[in-house]
Amino acid sequence: MQMPLNRIVDLMKKQDIDIVFLNNPRNVFYVSSYMSDPHERILAAILFKDEKPLLFTPALEENDAKKIASEYDIFSYLDTENPWEIIVAKLQEKNVPLKRWAIEKDFLTVERLEALKEAFPSAAFDFNISTTIQDMRLVKNPQELAIMKKAGYWADQALQIGAKALREGITEAEVVAEIEYQMKRRGISEMSFDTMVLFGENAASPHGTPGEKKLQKNQFVLFDLGVMYEGYASDVTRTLFFGDEPTEHQKEIYNLVLSAHDEAMAAVRVGMKASALDAVARNVIAVGGYGKYFNHRLGHGLGQGVHEFPSIMEGNDMEILDGMCFSIEPGIYLPGDVGVRVEDCGYASPEGFVSFTETPTGIATYLELIK
Amino acid sequence: MQMPLNRIVDLMKKQDIDIVFLNNPRNVFYVSSYMSDPHERILAAILFKDEKPLLFTPALEENDAKKIASEYDIFSYLDTENPWEIIVAKLQEKNVPLKRWAIEKDFLTVERLEALKEAFPSAAFDFNISTTIQDMRLVKNPQELAIMKKAGYWADQALQIGAKALREGITEAEVVAEIEYQMKRRGISEMSFDTMVLFGENAASPHGTPGEKKLQKNQFVLFDLGVMYEGYASDVTRTLFFGDEPTEHQKEIYNLVLSAHDEAMAAVRVGMKASALDAVARNVIAVGGYGKYFNHRLGHGLGQGVHEFPSIMEGNDMEILDGMCFSIEPGIYLPGDVGVRVEDCGYASPEGFVSFTETPTGIATYLELIK
Ligand SMILES: [Mn+2]
Ligand SMILES: [Mn+2]
Repeated sequence: MQMPLNRIVDLMKKQDIDIVFLNNPRNVFYVSSYMSDPHERILAAILFKDEKPLLFTPALEENDAKKIASEYDIFSYLDTENPWEIIVAKLQEKNVPLKRWAIEKDFLTVERLEALKEAFPSAAFDFNISTTIQDMRLVKNPQELAIMKKAGYWADQALQIGAKALREGITEAEVVAEIEYQMKRRGISEMSFDTMVLFGENAASPHGTPGEKKLQKNQFVLFDLGVMYEGYASDVTRTLFFGDEPTEHQKEIYNLVLSAHDEAMAAVRVGMKASALDAVARNVIAVGGYGKYFNHRLGHGLGQGVHEFPSIMEGNDMEILDGMCFSIEPGIYLPGDVGVRVEDCGYASPEGFVSFTETPTGIATYLELIK
Repeated sequence: MQMPLNRIVDLMKKQDIDIVFLNNPRNVFYVSSYMSDPHERILAAILFKDEKPLLFTPALEENDAKKIASEYDIFSYLDTENPWEIIVAKLQEKNVPLKRWAIEKDFLTVERLEALKEAFPSAAFDFNISTTIQDMRLVKNPQELAIMKKAGYWADQALQIGAKALREGITEAEVVAEIEYQMKRRGISEMSFDTMVLFGENAASPHGTPGEKKLQKNQFVLFDLGVMYEGYASDVTRTLFFGDEPTEHQKEIYNLVLSAHDEAMAAVRVGMKASALDAVARNVIAVGGYGKYFNHRLGHGLGQGVHEFPSIMEGNDMEILDGMCFSIEPGIYLPGDVGVRVEDCGYASPEGFVSFTETPTGIATYLELIK
C-alpha cells in the first residue's frame, strides 16, 4: 500500500502543503496498512514532503504497528501522558517548516484542531485532505476489487446460512446469532455492520432492529448483511419469501423492487452521473405507483467501510468512473404491512456493472437457496 | 430521562447560552432516550432556554424517534437534501436569539462547525458542552446503577459460557463465536466491544485479536468482554488457567495481579483521588518486581460506553464521587510469555466499591466455573 502515500506526497508538493495530519483510522490504514480502532485515544499518520512519515499510536499498540507499518517512524504515548505534547516535541525535532497543514475536516474534532492551533499558532489549517483521500478511495485497483469480490462471496455464504436457518417460530435475533456464529466458525470474525434480519412488517422500517419477533408462514424475511474481509466490506440485501405462495400484493411489491434493481444494474455505464442511475430505479418504482415508499437513496459507495462515496442519489452529479464501487439497493416500505429491498454491491467497468455478490434474486429465492 | 434535559436547560440560563447543539449519539440518547447510530448522517438534539427542544434525524428514522422522544419536536432530512439548510430554516422559524452556542468540542467535526459558522456568522461557538455532559454522566443514579448491575450479570454469564467452551484444540475465534452465539440466543444482541479471548502468550498483547491459535494444556486464557444492556455497557476480564497445575512462574504473575486488583478494590473511598487508586495497584505490582509490565492505566469509566470518564490513572486528580462507575483492571504482560489481567467494574459508594460482576477471581477459577 505504498501507492496512496506517494500520491499524497505528490499532492503536498503541488499544493505546497507542509504536513498532513490523518487521524481517521480508515485513512491511517489506507496510507500505512496499520488497522486499529483506538476509541478515544489518538492514532495518527503524519506525512511530510521529504521526511520519513510518522505513525503515532497508543503505547499498547506500538509493537503491533511496528510489525505492519514498516515504512513509518513509529512513536507512542502512555495514557498518563499528554499526547499533544509528545506530538509537538516530535514535530519540532524534525526542524522542517510546518506552516500549511492538511487536516481531515470531516473527522478531526474541534477539540483536536484547537490543540493543534495552540501548539502551532502561526500555522494555517485550511486544506481539507478528507476530500482528496475520498477521491483516491473512490476508484479501487484490481487487487482491491479482488478482495472485495471475496468479501462478497462471504456475504453470499452468510445469506445461505440465514436462509437455511429459517423455520416457523424462530426469532429474528436467533437467525442473526446463527449467521454470525457460522461465519466466525469459518474465520470471518467481523461483520461489516450489525446483521439485519427482519420478518414481515418489521422490514417496513428500513433501519429496523432484529428482535424477538417469531417467523410465521407466508411472510417476507429481509436479510441485510455483509462481512469484513482483509480490511474491505461487503454488503448485500435479499428479501426471501417464507411460505408456499406469495399473495398478489406481495408479488407486486417484490417484482417492482426487483425490476428497479435489475434495470439500474443494467443501466450502469462508466461516465454516467450518479443521479441518473438513481433516477432509473426511482422511475421504475414511481411508474409502479409506489414512488413515495422508496424513501432513501439508491446506493452508497463501499470499500473499507459500507458508507463511503459515491452516494448514488438525486442531486449528486458525480461521474461514475471505472473501478468505483457502490450498492444498488432499491426498496419499498409500506408501514405496518411489508418491506422489500434487493441489494447488490459491485463496481462500474467498461462492460457495465460487475457485482460482488451472486445470490439469486427471484421471489422464489428462499426455496432455491435451501434446495 | 427528563432530568438531564432540565439540568442542561438550567445551565443554559446560568451561562447565558442560547442554543445547545448535540450530535454525539450517546449524548442525544442521554437527553432524549432516542438511541441510534446514524453513521455519516446527522442526528442532533438542539436545546433552547425556553423553547421545545428539537430532534433532527435522517428521514428513515423519523417515525422511530417520534415513538421515543416524545418531549421533542422532531424533524428530518432525506439523503437528497442538504441537512444544514433544513436545520437553519428550522432555527430561523424559532425567532429566538442564537448568539451563543454550546457545542461538543470532542465530537463535532471541523466540517460541521464550519457549516454552522457559515450559517450563523455572528454567533459564538465557544462553550464546550461535552465537559458538562461528561460531568453529569460521571455519576449514575440508582436506576442507572440497577441496569448496570444487570449488564454485569450478563457479562458473568458470558464468562461462564466461555469457560465451558474451553477444550484442547479449540481456537480463540471459536470460543468468541460460541460466547456471542449463546448471548444472542439469550436475547443479548450486542456486546459492548469486540469480545477478547486470548490463549497463552497471545494475552501478552493487551490489545490482541482472537484468531486461529489453538488452546493447549497448561496455558492461561484471557477473557475480556462485556454486553450492552438497555443502553448500558458491562466489562469484565478474567484470566483462567486451563490445565492441571500452574507453574510457579504462572502463579507468581497471577497472584501479583490478583493482589493488585483486590487491594485496589478494597481501597476505593468516596473522596479519594483517581490517581491515588491507580497508585495502590501500581505499587503492589512494582513491589513485586513487574512494574514496567503493567503498562496501562488501572481503569476507565463506563456507562453508556466502555470508555467514559473517570480515567483511573496517574496524573488524574479527579475526586471519586458516590455513584461514579469505573473498572479496576491491573495486568502484567510479559511479551512472548504470558499475559494476565483481572478486571471488575462497579461504582464507588459510602460503603466502598460495589462490583457489577461476581465471577470468582482465584487462579482455580476455570475449574470452579465449569463445576
Ligand atoms: Mn447497503
Ligand atoms: Mn475494561
